[in-house]
Amino acid sequence: MHSPAGKVSGYVVLMIVQIIFLLLFWLFVRYEKSALPAALDAEDAGSANEHVSKYPQFQDIQVMIFVGFAFLMTFLRKYGYSATGFTLFMAALVVQWAVLMKGFLHMEDGKISLSLESIIDADIAAAVPLISMGALLGRTTPIQLLCMSLFEIALFAANEYLALNVFSICDCGGSITVHAFGAYFGLAVALMLRPASDQNEAGKLEGANYTSDIFAMIGTTFLWVYWPSFNSVLAEGAGSERAILNTFLSLAAATVTTFVVSALVSHENKLDMVHVQNSTLAGGVAVGTVCNLLLGAHGAVLIGIIAGTVSVLGYRYLTPWLTSTLRLHDTCGVHNLHGMPALISALASAIYASLVRIEDYQSELQDIFPAMVGNNGTASKIMGGLGRTASSQAGYQLFGIGVTVCVAIAGGILTGIVLKYTNFRKLQKDEQHQDEQYWEVPALEPKEE
Amino acid sequence: MHSPAGKVSGYVVLMIVQIIFLLLFWLFVRYEKSALPAALDAEDAGSANEHVSKYPQFQDIQVMIFVGFAFLMTFLRKYGYSATGFTLFMAALVVQWAVLMKGFLHMEDGKISLSLESIIDADIAAAVPLISMGALLGRTTPIQLLCMSLFEIALFAANEYLALNVFSICDCGGSITVHAFGAYFGLAVALMLRPASDQNEAGKLEGANYTSDIFAMIGTTFLWVYWPSFNSVLAEGAGSERAILNTFLSLAAATVTTFVVSALVSHENKLDMVHVQNSTLAGGVAVGTVCNLLLGAHGAVLIGIIAGTVSVLGYRYLTPWLTSTLRLHDTCGVHNLHGMPALISALASAIYASLVRIEDYQSELQDIFPAMVGNNGTASKIMGGLGRTASSQAGYQLFGIGVTVCVAIAGGILTGIVLKYTNFRKLQKDEQHQDEQYWEVPALEPKEE
Amino acid sequence: MHSPAGKVSGYVVLMIVQIIFLLLFWLFVRYEKSALPAALDAEDAGSANEHVSKYPQFQDIQVMIFVGFAFLMTFLRKYGYSATGFTLFMAALVVQWAVLMKGFLHMEDGKISLSLESIIDADIAAAVPLISMGALLGRTTPIQLLCMSLFEIALFAANEYLALNVFSICDCGGSITVHAFGAYFGLAVALMLRPASDQNEAGKLEGANYTSDIFAMIGTTFLWVYWPSFNSVLAEGAGSERAILNTFLSLAAATVTTFVVSALVSHENKLDMVHVQNSTLAGGVAVGTVCNLLLGAHGAVLIGIIAGTVSVLGYRYLTPWLTSTLRLHDTCGVHNLHGMPALISALASAIYASLVRIEDYQSELQDIFPAMVGNNGTASKIMGGLGRTASSQAGYQLFGIGVTVCVAIAGGILTGIVLKYTNFRKLQKDEQHQDEQYWEVPALEPKEE
Repeated sequence: MHSPAGKVSGYVVLMIVQIIFLLLFWLFVRYEKSALPAALDAEDAGSANEHVSKYPQFQDIQVMIFVGFAFLMTFLRKYGYSATGFTLFMAALVVQWAVLMKGFLHMEDGKISLSLESIIDADIAAAVPLISMGALLGRTTPIQLLCMSLFEIALFAANEYLALNVFSICDCGGSITVHAFGAYFGLAVALMLRPASDQNEAGKLEGANYTSDIFAMIGTTFLWVYWPSFNSVLAEGAGSERAILNTFLSLAAATVTTFVVSALVSHENKLDMVHVQNSTLAGGVAVGTVCNLLLGAHGAVLIGIIAGTVSVLGYRYLTPWLTSTLRLHDTCGVHNLHGMPALISALASAIYASLVRIEDYQSELQDIFPAMVGNNGTASKIMGGLGRTASSQAGYQLFGIGVTVCVAIAGGILTGIVLKYTNFRKLQKDEQHQDEQYWEVPALEPKEE
Repeated sequence: MHSPAGKVSGYVVLMIVQIIFLLLFWLFVRYEKSALPAALDAEDAGSANEHVSKYPQFQDIQVMIFVGFAFLMTFLRKYGYSATGFTLFMAALVVQWAVLMKGFLHMEDGKISLSLESIIDADIAAAVPLISMGALLGRTTPIQLLCMSLFEIALFAANEYLALNVFSICDCGGSITVHAFGAYFGLAVALMLRPASDQNEAGKLEGANYTSDIFAMIGTTFLWVYWPSFNSVLAEGAGSERAILNTFLSLAAATVTTFVVSALVSHENKLDMVHVQNSTLAGGVAVGTVCNLLLGAHGAVLIGIIAGTVSVLGYRYLTPWLTSTLRLHDTCGVHNLHGMPALISALASAIYASLVRIEDYQSELQDIFPAMVGNNGTASKIMGGLGRTASSQAGYQLFGIGVTVCVAIAGGILTGIVLKYTNFRKLQKDEQHQDEQYWEVPALEPKEE
Repeated sequence: MHSPAGKVSGYVVLMIVQIIFLLLFWLFVRYEKSALPAALDAEDAGSANEHVSKYPQFQDIQVMIFVGFAFLMTFLRKYGYSATGFTLFMAALVVQWAVLMKGFLHMEDGKISLSLESIIDADIAAAVPLISMGALLGRTTPIQLLCMSLFEIALFAANEYLALNVFSICDCGGSITVHAFGAYFGLAVALMLRPASDQNEAGKLEGANYTSDIFAMIGTTFLWVYWPSFNSVLAEGAGSERAILNTFLSLAAATVTTFVVSALVSHENKLDMVHVQNSTLAGGVAVGTVCNLLLGAHGAVLIGIIAGTVSVLGYRYLTPWLTSTLRLHDTCGVHNLHGMPALISALASAIYASLVRIEDYQSELQDIFPAMVGNNGTASKIMGGLGRTASSQAGYQLFGIGVTVCVAIAGGILTGIVLKYTNFRKLQKDEQHQDEQYWEVPALEPKEE
């Protein structure tokens, strides 16, 4: 399939996928009541307005997905078209698929309800394959990415349902279900697609130039700025304000720490742009699962300090070690930005869950830890709930991250096997990390310029 | 007027225009009641807060105009200062003029009311000459752009009044009144300013380089992300949520389709950045007029697929044909991003209007199709309305786009004649598509870099 | 301290600062009631939602700080890593410190309340040292910036308390307390750090290249677009809508004026990117203090015209004069973007304050000019207030700017002395305006590219 004919058949498959989406939307998707006209004699005009009260946060997340992720990946000096273009393509494909897949898990009367909430969920889901793509950046074809995302989103939706609705874990900012899942899935695919041992040296194009590094800072800064929206969009009431505050403080602390640790461990104590572009954001991931809990400002700052430290050390020591030992490439270092910080977040969630007292969370217990309702005599006040104890909830948090990582790795290995051993076109070493394989790239400019 | 003295007189005219604006603001513009202090004994403090509930959407549109349009046009490799700078200049000029011109059409007691709504309308109006500028990019002086925009905004305001208030067509996202108008006006100007036949070869600077293409993706991604705000800002109630959902899905489907069609029709089946930068957005234009209707998710996706296909084919085949046949340059391909998708949107609006049933739209009929109120016995429930039938409304939709395109082309030809045959400074072939004519450009960097 | 060891000790100090912040957060900071769970039997669920109604404006300001300021400073062609990186580092450090310092001035029961308002205030405060950094750009080490910001924020918080709470001046958009303070503080530091006379020629790296100028336009356009949020975020009720409208119009007028004046005074009447990047924003600063007053559209436009003119003339004539006469470098020209426009704003505030009539401001007098309540018989309606007259308020406005400028200059001189005469590492002339001192910069690319 190395011929243009091979490319053509790949794009034809993509068109067929889009048309299948069209049919599925036609068969299964309907506007939710909030998005339908009220009856002529209804009194509640304007209630729709309230229903879109999360629209500004949705738009922030849109920027994170389509601008933030896209530009964060432009740091490779010959892969900017692909970074921005394939992010756009993948996200546009995945949001449609996520509306359908998440919808199938919550159908009513055989129909999927479409509302602002659907597309908020879809945008969050789009982050998952984009994180995985970060691990593989420059070493896959767009058709491989297409197949990976379709399967990954289905598995993500199932795992998320399991974690949130069955295990009833808290994961407000999605560090477990989104970040850990996306990172370990991508790493498992990368492991399966690893080069034969004699090709192990880093490609000469696997690096930044001065301009591409500054483009990447567009991604970093927008992700930084809008991360509080990502973490808080699914929180309720006062928990929403805490999610904003905790995320903001954790990011700030992680950023300061990143600069310190980067300078301390780098060559000649100079700052490394890779750390600044990525580890500054680790605070947002590490606070994700617990962002709406009663951390206190100091809790958020402490999590940020730990995340920044772990992330920079990961870039400096762990990633090179994985590359040299396992031949596991991780182009964007998603293990350091998403993987390990998500593990920190899960661990923090177990610790904070074990400390939950009903008198602290009061009316919010139902929202945040629904399985704990019914414990300690609150059953008399609120019906339902499993009466789970604090330490039991802590155990479920750890169980949730464990299952998620296992599902992600198993799914990633399976995906990697399919991408490697079936007749997908594979990129050769000298075709990697450059746009020219899939894009018309302008010729070099005339000398006079 | 080729001398610096000619430039000077142009800028002096511009200053006079700004001072005339100042006088007109002083004479005619007053804050709307919502922006004035409440009386000391008033009870309704906080109602102002509701009045600015559309502020986040306004800010999204601001980004589209000042960042999105600006950077989308940076793709030319020697025209980045002009793309970002002239967009800023034009938009800053036009928003003031639009507040005045749209205000004159809705005066009360001889005064124009200034409120958040005024500047939302002004930002939307600013899109019109920026679209036209896209057709002309690199081939006009700033003073020519100034004159064009002043006349174009006046004509736009009149045509919009005609279409919305007289013909009573639906055009929620402005595809007819904004996109079709701006595109065909600009194309008509470009036709009048077309080069003599012997200069027909494309200028050597009329193309991108690697860095300028990535700058352009800043424009694309922000326009993509915020397009739902552009389309939904003037919608009401539940229609606002539908406008968001339909625009989002149409954009997603157009994006996937763009990648497919671009690869299928391009040289060696490689993706073309021009398509990715522009045609991915065609879904937003094509769904514009109908975005608040009951399209269903499948309707929005279908419109997106059609728009992406038509737009890429337009770039690949129609634009080169227009250039070679009519010597009609269209630098940014606005015909493919704004013109044809707007025609699709108008056609879709006629189809959907012909299917309107009062029992579907119920309480929203008044907002969306005010002229149909009174039809079919609803008069007993809602007063007013012209009792227009569904098929009659469909006819008005087609009439609306027809009149708009004619007015735009006539206005554009007139403008082109003025710009060409009066003593405006004109750019010579070798002065085009480069910043050096109007900007101080840094000297080439020393060799060592 | 020129050795890597010197750098190391600087970064260790920074880590200690971050840990001290952690301790202070732990000891003093608590969530405000709005961010805590409601009691189980409380009825007011959803009120928290109202408490975060300013969240979209907060996010706009976040973009201004972390994207706007960062990219506006990327115009230097070899200082892009530092511009974006040090802005991120400084802002992340300062927001934490500002929460603490502003909190200490408004403690309740020995605790600082943490809410969305705290971090809005912190983001605004972050602008102050970033403005000062603009004057010094390229001539300080990150450790010098760290020390400067810590002291500057403490002094800023004290001066702001004095101006707003003691002198009771109006300063809705912070032009006096933020822009004038930051600019004159930074200029005073720059004066103290000025080079010995024989090094006076501009460094060869103190300039832009084509790409860096376009990166800077990212900063300009986002600052332009979101400035209405910066100015209006602390306004109340209808004043908030006026703040938006006035800022928007002032920016638009300043932008048009900037283009005119830039062309008229520049070499060969070509536009200068420095003016377009900066002076277009002067309208936002100049309207800041008065943005919520009853300026009328014409008042806002007039202020914008004046600001644009003064700012361009400052860049063209005053800055070179200051450099040649006082050896005062002002890399970004903050005097022209922040300093002089803030003085204009203060002067305008005195003029408008002198014209205040209670019957115009009615219920908003309490919010905007609290010290004037009680004047003219309003005491019978609203309790409290100092009964200050309009002309007295005007005097206080002038007194406020005078004190602010004096405090800023004194603080800046003191800071400059500390940075110069203690054993901080200083940058030599040939180390300035380039990233290589503090960043790992990619090697030049291979010839073939």
